[in-house]
Amino acid sequence: MPDAYTPRPEDKFSFGLWTIGNRGRDPFGDVVRDSLAPLDAVAMLGEIGAWGVNLHDNDLVPIDATPAERDRIVNDFKAACQRHGVVVPMATVNLFFDPVFRDGAFTSNDANVRSYAVQKTMRAMDLGAELGARIFVLWGGREGTETDACRRPDVAVKRLREAVNYLCEYSIDRQYGFTFALEAKPNEPRGDIYMATTGAYLGFIATLDHPDMVGVNPEVAHEQMAGLNFLHAVAQAWEAGKLVHIDLNDQAPGRYDQDFRFGSANVKAAFWLVKFLEDVGYAGPRHFDAHAYRTEDREGVKDFARGCMRTYLILRDRAKHWNADAEIQSLLAETGTNDSTRYSPAHRDQLLGRPFDRAGLARKGLAYERLDQLTMEVLLGVR
Amino acid sequence: MPDAYTPRPEDKFSFGLWTIGNRGRDPFGDVVRDSLAPLDAVAMLGEIGAWGVNLHDNDLVPIDATPAERDRIVNDFKAACQRHGVVVPMATVNLFFDPVFRDGAFTSNDANVRSYAVQKTMRAMDLGAELGARIFVLWGGREGTETDACRRPDVAVKRLREAVNYLCEYSIDRQYGFTFALEAKPNEPRGDIYMATTGAYLGFIATLDHPDMVGVNPEVAHEQMAGLNFLHAVAQAWEAGKLVHIDLNDQAPGRYDQDFRFGSANVKAAFWLVKFLEDVGYAGPRHFDAHAYRTEDREGVKDFARGCMRTYLILRDRAKHWNADAEIQSLLAETGTNDSTRYSPAHRDQLLGRPFDRAGLARKGLAYERLDQLTMEVLLGVR
Amino acid sequence: MPDAYTPRPEDKFSFGLWTIGNRGRDPFGDVVRDSLAPLDAVAMLGEIGAWGVNLHDNDLVPIDATPAERDRIVNDFKAACQRHGVVVPMATVNLFFDPVFRDGAFTSNDANVRSYAVQKTMRAMDLGAELGARIFVLWGGREGTETDACRRPDVAVKRLREAVNYLCEYSIDRQYGFTFALEAKPNEPRGDIYMATTGAYLGFIATLDHPDMVGVNPEVAHEQMAGLNFLHAVAQAWEAGKLVHIDLNDQAPGRYDQDFRFGSANVKAAFWLVKFLEDVGYAGPRHFDAHAYRTEDREGVKDFARGCMRTYLILRDRAKHWNADAEIQSLLAETGTNDSTRYSPAHRDQLLGRPFDRAGLARKGLAYERLDQLTMEVLLGVR
Amino acid sequence: MPDAYTPRPEDKFSFGLWTIGNRGRDPFGDVVRDSLAPLDAVAMLGEIGAWGVNLHDNDLVPIDATPAERDRIVNDFKAACQRHGVVVPMATVNLFFDPVFRDGAFTSNDANVRSYAVQKTMRAMDLGAELGARIFVLWGGREGTETDACRRPDVAVKRLREAVNYLCEYSIDRQYGFTFALEAKPNEPRGDIYMATTGAYLGFIATLDHPDMVGVNPEVAHEQMAGLNFLHAVAQAWEAGKLVHIDLNDQAPGRYDQDFRFGSANVKAAFWLVKFLEDVGYAGPRHFDAHAYRTEDREGVKDFARGCMRTYLILRDRAKHWNADAEIQSLLAETGTNDSTRYSPAHRDQLLGRPFDRAGLARKGLAYERLDQLTMEVLLGVR
Repeated sequence: MPDAYTPRPEDKFSFGLWTIGNRGRDPFGDVVRDSLAPLDAVAMLGEIGAWGVNLHDNDLVPIDATPAERDRIVNDFKAACQRHGVVVPMATVNLFFDPVFRDGAFTSNDANVRSYAVQKTMRAMDLGAELGARIFVLWGGREGTETDACRRPDVAVKRLREAVNYLCEYSIDRQYGFTFALEAKPNEPRGDIYMATTGAYLGFIATLDHPDMVGVNPEVAHEQMAGLNFLHAVAQAWEAGKLVHIDLNDQAPGRYDQDFRFGSANVKAAFWLVKFLEDVGYAGPRHFDAHAYRTEDREGVKDFARGCMRTYLILRDRAKHWNADAEIQSLLAETGTNDSTRYSPAHRDQLLGRPFDRAGLARKGLAYERLDQLTMEVLLGVR
Repeated sequence: MPDAYTPRPEDKFSFGLWTIGNRGRDPFGDVVRDSLAPLDAVAMLGEIGAWGVNLHDNDLVPIDATPAERDRIVNDFKAACQRHGVVVPMATVNLFFDPVFRDGAFTSNDANVRSYAVQKTMRAMDLGAELGARIFVLWGGREGTETDACRRPDVAVKRLREAVNYLCEYSIDRQYGFTFALEAKPNEPRGDIYMATTGAYLGFIATLDHPDMVGVNPEVAHEQMAGLNFLHAVAQAWEAGKLVHIDLNDQAPGRYDQDFRFGSANVKAAFWLVKFLEDVGYAGPRHFDAHAYRTEDREGVKDFARGCMRTYLILRDRAKHWNADAEIQSLLAETGTNDSTRYSPAHRDQLLGRPFDRAGLARKGLAYERLDQLTMEVLLGVR
Repeated sequence: MPDAYTPRPEDKFSFGLWTIGNRGRDPFGDVVRDSLAPLDAVAMLGEIGAWGVNLHDNDLVPIDATPAERDRIVNDFKAACQRHGVVVPMATVNLFFDPVFRDGAFTSNDANVRSYAVQKTMRAMDLGAELGARIFVLWGGREGTETDACRRPDVAVKRLREAVNYLCEYSIDRQYGFTFALEAKPNEPRGDIYMATTGAYLGFIATLDHPDMVGVNPEVAHEQMAGLNFLHAVAQAWEAGKLVHIDLNDQAPGRYDQDFRFGSANVKAAFWLVKFLEDVGYAGPRHFDAHAYRTEDREGVKDFARGCMRTYLILRDRAKHWNADAEIQSLLAETGTNDSTRYSPAHRDQLLGRPFDRAGLARKGLAYERLDQLTMEVLLGVR
Repeated sequence: MPDAYTPRPEDKFSFGLWTIGNRGRDPFGDVVRDSLAPLDAVAMLGEIGAWGVNLHDNDLVPIDATPAERDRIVNDFKAACQRHGVVVPMATVNLFFDPVFRDGAFTSNDANVRSYAVQKTMRAMDLGAELGARIFVLWGGREGTETDACRRPDVAVKRLREAVNYLCEYSIDRQYGFTFALEAKPNEPRGDIYMATTGAYLGFIATLDHPDMVGVNPEVAHEQMAGLNFLHAVAQAWEAGKLVHIDLNDQAPGRYDQDFRFGSANVKAAFWLVKFLEDVGYAGPRHFDAHAYRTEDREGVKDFARGCMRTYLILRDRAKHWNADAEIQSLLAETGTNDSTRYSPAHRDQLLGRPFDRAGLARKGLAYERLDQLTMEVLLGVR
């Protein structure tokens, strides 16, 4: 039965085909669930109230499909999306599953592999554009090393730049209107992956031919794997106008890629994230790049997907409470305002001549323990 | 007695006053060594063959020194540097020790603290310039949070930008000729530090008023704390023309900030790093930002400092062997060359029409196990 | 004003003198708070509703106090405890602050240091016994290495055993009635600390002369630093009858020792922990080994301490809800019961001959996503 | 061509069938190598000079083989082992690949699954015994949780104990003469695995019916994943008489399970380990539980396996040099000797009355920086 935490289209919740279709294979175990055909996946998403579906090229079209097969599959998929009221906000390309990419795609030492990767991405862009996507995610999961003997890492950066520049031109040429969203990850499936953090990609974007066409797709698990504060990465991207897309899931630090249900590993971090996205008015998709535990059957997959959305909505509600809490706001008021200063000789001299009461400034209690405890109590629903 | 691994000035080895002067205090224990006066530190660095000495303002000049005391101290220090043949390539500012900075400096919620931090940095720049430094490092060790309740992280980014922009203007105004080197760290002493990685700073620099005046100062320990591949961060910075300075030390991942002797925790990572710096012709200082174990007396501190330099030189020698090893080079030759491709309609069509033998490309063994094992054997001195 | 989450003596909440007295020194910064005299600390604990106070010998008695000074201090402290209705359930010994312990105490290479450490512990036991403590915690924070060159680790184990055996004899001899609680930590302040996990100590205890007198004191932060599941360590200790004491605080994995307010870093982990302690009927102290942020003044320290207790009580309340939730209980009912099997030739043959429907057993969805999502909703107070 | 680092049978190097037969599947990518039939694997091991081969039941016998098929396969395998001069020192059971074990085997909530797991292990013991193995490894890779809602962890411990006790009885009953070696891992493929560390198993063993029949099988990667010092875990197990088997490989901390070539991630840690095993006279198998990079073909797999053994032998050689280095030995001599003390009233009084020169003891430099730097230079082959 619907309640305050029932998803609506305007919440912009999306799932990848690969997420609800995940079959539960892992490095030590076999698949545990039957495959979920794309048309059934779209139906499931419609049923549970999701707004969008995302996909890698090969989530929908087999890597060796003929053009005719491809077209039939795509048409059926478009019809299903329409039937179930589901849109395709984002598309991406699989440059990691096939053994041809075992040592990278855009950064492979083999020029043929690099070329094939670019070709495959162009076709994935054709597909995404046809399905109506305006965001194209690039995750270079195999762009990395187990031993740095194999290639100088600055060479890898150059190769990566060349590929992204080329793909930007292709989008312009075809008038696809894509914004690219680069997705970082520190490791797994490679020992180390180039462009390990969202920050690294923000630095990389500044060196591209069309930086305005390119932003980032931060993923909770990918920053948290390295123990980094995900909110800080998202905020830097947002402040730089580069938050194009976001992958929501959860993850304990210092582990294999867990892709847990959103909010289930560190709900406080999830709270700050939801609060930030809502406070700043992020208008892009809320994409859940997660999958159900291997213990689940088809019903469990729905529980998982519903749980992702419910937790987001509960946390959004909690964020509203936090913003409306008088004591919290009074404590925040004391955290001061900004005074913008611009350099000038006069300001310079004034600043250099200004005395400061260092000990006095150091003495004041900042009441952050209180502020954080109040946050916990809002989060836990006791105020 | 001198050998092939004895440091020479052209090696550009530098140490911070705070490194050899470290007294061994830690969160659970008291100081274990007497303080080392700056003049004695310079003498020690001369004795062990270092080229340069770096300093925070308060490593040399107490925070509450009068102008006259300050001038006397600085003059004595300059004389000592000259006497011992030691230069000052880099200066920095301490924005973390005094309680006034307990909640940050440039990003503090208190506008007075922010202003004081800028003033203090300007004076540290005056000091650095007077001592001949042309690199100014900014490490925002307290710019962070234990709870994200206290401030929105995008506000912190704006405050940080404002401060760095102001300081760039000051350097221009005073004709100091500084290049700023921003130093990232993920956490400690704060729960989370803003600008957690070198990559984050590369992204940040692109948003500054004078990006050309600003680069990075990556530190081994600070990336390795988060389990990140330090070489990859350094290579990205180098490739972007942003590698201004480097902090060499060592660190086990997922730990407190250890600042161990260079190469002592992960010698293979140190090898790739030295090889990269030498191969690309990095011409800046090799700064050791490390300190001796608490078990050491003054002699042990010298052992520590000499060890940092020796290990660098041994690894530089090993890198030469690696580059000269015929089997290694023959394996590398197979890793292929680059073919630069520029987008054009013609190239587009050619690429889209090109068939690829995916299975064939996937079949070839890349011999990276052999390559890496040969690396181990070069490193261990058995070939 | 008191509410459902106001602490009462029967909750057995205790704090160490060093926790509320923490002055906020860290590796990069000076003290930020005045020292808190033990008598004032006891008064503060009484005021905020704590039940007990714990201490290292030198938290109360300076390391160089004369016997007369020591006796006066102890008498004053006992009077204060009585006055404020605070008991001393646990005592411990500081074998880490003084430089004499820079390379360990019981495992030091220096036989004199080892002897001094045992002597100091005996006196700390005298002190603890005099104050009424029946639990004696041993945390070997300096028993470790930065380089394994310095000592063979099996030698360290032998030295540690010898010390603990000796101290057990001393407790028996003096009829102190102590149960020892060994506290593990993986690293910091040493590069690596021997007996890195609670599990390691459980293994060690089995090799002692008096295993029945010795258990463990697991600390949230110390297991979570290594990314380990604290609940599992506590449960193993409990199940073995070895959970003598517990240190509650919080910590992000893969970081420096944060000692955050209980529940503030990972509230879900804290929830499972509280639920376990309450479900099994753990009757020992709930000791908060944490400290306030450096941003806090004296009032903030109280906020911190109150927050530890409130969060415990909120989570205890949530655990009751969880246990009473019909849907959760119905899902748990399906998780099956235990059938104890004892080996016999007959059972062997029966088991070897029994057919199993492997595919059938694998097909059933276990509904753990649902179970965990319901947990989240109980935790967040929306059911 | 053979050299000083060519393996010989007396080195007791063994590989699992699953290691050299690893096909390179990972969570994001498909298999990259053809399957390697067990008979071919044995031939390969003979060719490269390995001494032993280990196996899970299903590495050799398919899970659904008929008894007749099973017997034929086993006979062929025994013949191949004899033909290639390879022994089977250890056997184990696969309780993780089949979906039936998706929520654990011995600790599953489903009593049928638990029974099936015990039955399957009994048959794997039959197989191991038939092949001549005297060590039986139990790795409970699926004994864990993603959410602690699903089962109380003390219940899991009880179930695990019951299974191990049962299997000990079976070994006694059948006169198999097995020693069990329990293998810990903190996480992956489960969110958290029970008995996360070797220490946890040492504690568990003490609670078994036949502790004398059970020891541990520590694995480099499994302790290093959690950032723990592997040597310390091995040393504790050795000192307790519980080091039955060892799994050699390599791993960066805080990552997915990498199973890299021995010594390739942290060669200094590998050096201390080899030195310890050789110094104490560990006489069991040196088992490499690792696999080749996905970039490798069949030849690359041989390079990988040879590299494991070569690195071990190089490090063994370095350890001899270290032990023979006069300066190192002279520094070690200063690390002092042990004086065993036994408690008595007389010793108590003597110790309590003994004065200690705390400052004097604290003043002495311990020269560990020198000792560690000399170690680095021995390791790198420059002394």
